[in-house]
Amino acid sequence: MIKVVAKGYFYEGKAEEAIKLYEELVEKTRKEDGCISYSLFRDIEDDSILTMIEEWESKDALDKHKKTEHFTRLVPIIGEFRKSSEVNVYQQVI
Amino acid sequence: MIKVVAKGYFYEGKAEEAIKLYEELVEKTRKEDGCISYSLFRDIEDDSILTMIEEWESKDALDKHKKTEHFTRLVPIIGEFRKSSEVNVYQQVI
Repeated sequence: MIKVVAKGYFYEGKAEEAIKLYEELVEKTRKEDGCISYSLFRDIEDDSILTMIEEWESKDALDKHKKTEHFTRLVPIIGEFRKSSEVNVYQQVI
Repeated sequence: MIKVVAKGYFYEGKAEEAIKLYEELVEKTRKEDGCISYSLFRDIEDDSILTMIEEWESKDALDKHKKTEHFTRLVPIIGEFRKSSEVNVYQQVI
């Protein structure tokens, strides 16, 4: 199992616009083969931070996700609302 | 439900020592009231990054966790192996 944490710092007032796009991204991604979970979170102390936390059956399933129509169309648009982002791909240790 | 992502950048060769301490922390924390999940992950591209991903039933349960004997004893020791860390507390949006 692969875990992904994709954290974004959004421009003021732009997180709401991003959430509308994330709704389609989440709905379509959850139907992909190998997607265990795919959810969007918001920092309770800083509402400009939105973070996707994802679980994939394999690195291969994650790589396929990045080539889907919904990912390649929506993620660059979401990126325009974002000051910066950091993505980490993890394996479970404990 | 509250989600916590606690990401640490460890000094070279110190992640292994930290993992030994995390083993006790994880074992004891999973037994706490209100702990849904509490797991340690390592970045697949940068093995100096260790990240706890946690799910708690409530902010209250998380606050109680931070006052436990195992948390107040082990987390400062783990902190000595770490260059820096960032902790985010999240609520689910989608």
